[in-house]
Amino acid sequence: MNGAEALVRTLVGAGVDVCFANPGTSETHFVAALDRVEGMRCVLCLAEGSVTGAADGYARMADKPASTLLHLGPGLANGLTNLHNAGRGYTPMVNIVGDHATYHHAYDAPLTSDIEAVARPFSHWVRMGTSAASVAADAADAIAAARNPPGQIATLILPADVAWSEAPGGAAPPRALAVPEPIDPDAIRRAAAILRSGEPAALLMTGRALRAANLDNAGRIAAATGARLLSQTSNARVERGAGRVAVDRVPYPVDIALKFLAGLKHVILIGAKAPVAFFAYPEKPSVLTPAGCEIFCLARPGQDLGAALAALADELGAARAPVPAEALRRSAPPGDGPITPETLAAALCARLPENAIVVDESISVGRAFYGTLRGAPPHDWLQLTGGAIGEGIPLAIGAAVACPDRKVVALEADGSAMYTIQALWTHAREQLDVTTVIMNNRSYAILNIELARTGAGSGGPKAKDLLDLSRPDLDFVKLAEGMGVPAVAVRTADEAVAALERAHAEPGPHLIDAILA
Amino acid sequence: MNGAEALVRTLVGAGVDVCFANPGTSETHFVAALDRVEGMRCVLCLAEGSVTGAADGYARMADKPASTLLHLGPGLANGLTNLHNAGRGYTPMVNIVGDHATYHHAYDAPLTSDIEAVARPFSHWVRMGTSAASVAADAADAIAAARNPPGQIATLILPADVAWSEAPGGAAPPRALAVPEPIDPDAIRRAAAILRSGEPAALLMTGRALRAANLDNAGRIAAATGARLLSQTSNARVERGAGRVAVDRVPYPVDIALKFLAGLKHVILIGAKAPVAFFAYPEKPSVLTPAGCEIFCLARPGQDLGAALAALADELGAARAPVPAEALRRSAPPGDGPITPETLAAALCARLPENAIVVDESISVGRAFYGTLRGAPPHDWLQLTGGAIGEGIPLAIGAAVACPDRKVVALEADGSAMYTIQALWTHAREQLDVTTVIMNNRSYAILNIELARTGAGSGGPKAKDLLDLSRPDLDFVKLAEGMGVPAVAVRTADEAVAALERAHAEPGPHLIDAILA
Repeated sequence: MNGAEALVRTLVGAGVDVCFANPGTSETHFVAALDRVEGMRCVLCLAEGSVTGAADGYARMADKPASTLLHLGPGLANGLTNLHNAGRGYTPMVNIVGDHATYHHAYDAPLTSDIEAVARPFSHWVRMGTSAASVAADAADAIAAARNPPGQIATLILPADVAWSEAPGGAAPPRALAVPEPIDPDAIRRAAAILRSGEPAALLMTGRALRAANLDNAGRIAAATGARLLSQTSNARVERGAGRVAVDRVPYPVDIALKFLAGLKHVILIGAKAPVAFFAYPEKPSVLTPAGCEIFCLARPGQDLGAALAALADELGAARAPVPAEALRRSAPPGDGPITPETLAAALCARLPENAIVVDESISVGRAFYGTLRGAPPHDWLQLTGGAIGEGIPLAIGAAVACPDRKVVALEADGSAMYTIQALWTHAREQLDVTTVIMNNRSYAILNIELARTGAGSGGPKAKDLLDLSRPDLDFVKLAEGMGVPAVAVRTADEAVAALERAHAEPGPHLIDAILA
Repeated sequence: MNGAEALVRTLVGAGVDVCFANPGTSETHFVAALDRVEGMRCVLCLAEGSVTGAADGYARMADKPASTLLHLGPGLANGLTNLHNAGRGYTPMVNIVGDHATYHHAYDAPLTSDIEAVARPFSHWVRMGTSAASVAADAADAIAAARNPPGQIATLILPADVAWSEAPGGAAPPRALAVPEPIDPDAIRRAAAILRSGEPAALLMTGRALRAANLDNAGRIAAATGARLLSQTSNARVERGAGRVAVDRVPYPVDIALKFLAGLKHVILIGAKAPVAFFAYPEKPSVLTPAGCEIFCLARPGQDLGAALAALADELGAARAPVPAEALRRSAPPGDGPITPETLAAALCARLPENAIVVDESISVGRAFYGTLRGAPPHDWLQLTGGAIGEGIPLAIGAAVACPDRKVVALEADGSAMYTIQALWTHAREQLDVTTVIMNNRSYAILNIELARTGAGSGGPKAKDLLDLSRPDLDFVKLAEGMGVPAVAVRTADEAVAALERAHAEPGPHLIDAILA
């Protein structure tokens, strides 16, 4: 067997059995090996931003890494932005990046680049494969690195001759996985003391703390102590809805966030970072907590966040208390009238499928969605953890591949959708059960807001033109149909509800172009 | 005036008066400054691969840099691939990349990254702006770096507070530009001696050597000495067609390239690199010239290639000899019948507009195009200099912005087109005179060829599936119309000719989806 086959066998042997791919000439031996190894599912994407975004969405829902297959430095470069998002969300991922044959590098052929340097800013682990004999061990190390708690981006570079040369040792066995660091009992006692003090306090959570079972304990803690339950502004995955404990996100706009956190004397971090502004604004603080508020880190991202919450509930004597779960509260269908953020939120809440996965890249229009869907049937909520737009449609690919029995609803701003619109083709090719809803306001609306917020004024004609998407209007129905995804445009709230009903009733991908008034 | 305005004024003052942009919150002050400065044309693109590809196409045709405007590390990352292509083609470019405010970095907000590290692998010059007082000088340095012969990628990082703070010094004056290094007279004499030796020899050229006036001298040299006139496989811009001296490209496939160069005893480099294989293949050489062939570098890329050719023609006594120019030879329209690479080449040659700019990202289907159009009316031919696909539609933006009085014909493979399909929207928004012709063979056809060539076999079902674009078929007419570009599908050679006639007759963008048999 050659190095490529040894690598593929090592991936599958360690449970990495989905590969999101956009291959090229230097990856042909990896591609050919796929037919010699049972058990690897390959998903082709038409551009690399879709590849890495899909691998991010997959790992968030499967709780294990996918692999990617990328072509040389430029192919990796195209995927870096969603590696940034994935890394900020602690997603495990194993990137396989093809390279020229080792001996061919010296000739500086046109596609040559320093792939390690390209990978490093957005990878936690980078290795250049050097021989077919060692590449399986490299792959096993890459998988272990990716699964190092809380999850990392591991990038293995595979020169073409390493792939095609004979690998006498074959596949490598899986490495033992690192376990999360234990929680310091003193930290549990200190957190309990803070919460018992009676001073205004909040738990600020992200990562696995936001899974339903762990939130049950958070809810018990809150009920016992009066602590507020908060999450970061952006989180990889929140299990929420009816029957679950709700958490409030720290708001994105600085002024609103400052008010939201005003009065707190203690913030206890459980996998989260201390809250800071997404961007700096003149004359506004970067730190969002009030002066004198103590930040206490109970658990770092790589620790067992669920164990921390369980131990804290136990310490507080609340481990068996009832869970203050949300009641089922579907919105009434919004009736006739124009599509606004509010009517669209109501339509989504009225018709959200049971156990749906919601991908949220709805930016300015979607601010109300999270709150409105608080009492919807149980669902998972996936966000843009790194803030780099252009991941929603790819995230939906990965979530749907990981959870074929669940409906995925992707909420997409028009501007964000266009960064990786190619990903819709993979929705069609794989017949993924994804309903993509475009918030079509014909504008980078968030930037019109930010122009004023950053003190840059309201903008002259040139500035306004750079934030405008209406010349010409984007027709997302044609774009979707051009890639094989059935689509419909809706202009009233009634039409939106009807379109959601049809899309959810019928398996396979759909797109709804919601034209905002 | 603030730092952003000082920067914009410095750009415009140095003649950098086109900005391809995809801005975000950290760039709002740059955006706002555009309305306070006369003379900067801004072109919005929906994704950053389009931004950098457009800037590449612009500079190739305008012979001066455009600026780009990119949002933080992820925005830059999305544009890196076409920086790779641009850098390999010696394109001058000034990238302005917004960053968080300097004091905000310490808080590691979600969109924070090491932008210098992201930029470095594909930039020749990188600088982090540190204050509003110095950013205009930084910009002047960036422009000078970009224009350093033969052309470089310069990336200036602009923290938000550097943009919004008061810049007491205002704009900076343009720097004196570096001039190309002179040609060594001994090298001229040595090259002349080689050519007079009677041994089989070739001039291998790229860059400015491939402009018509310089090719006149190359033609005289060839006529006087029997030397072959060759270019690199990929070149940023070739002035060619009727009335000009033709050069042959070194073929891409290794076996064909080896035969093409067989027998040569001398290759004289004029801005070009010694010919090597694009990729390594088992049992095939990386070096394409035959054993014993001497490679002599007459002029490096940063030298004055036109002066080198003029001096060599003079040394050979050929400076006033007649120019062996191509005659006008339009193909006959291919008549009725299916669309094949050959009939499409004939259709293009039959109907190529006078003085057109041809952007060639036609990959496997388009191999015949270059040869067939040798005797077409005079035109410029732009290729993928770095080999990273996904640049054609963006290159066409830049070429059309640089040359509003010329028709641009973009020849696009289906797979390549999908990497940056968003760029069509900018064709519509700017009403660019671009006809995009899609070679729709529903496949990454080149990779089916490469699978066999790399010794990976013919591929099993999984491998073949990863190279297949037919499930579902892409409907480029809908994709184009969805972004405001009028489009038509053609299935016969006759229809192709008629569609080209209509597209060329009517100003503004068009797309022709040529469905190959």
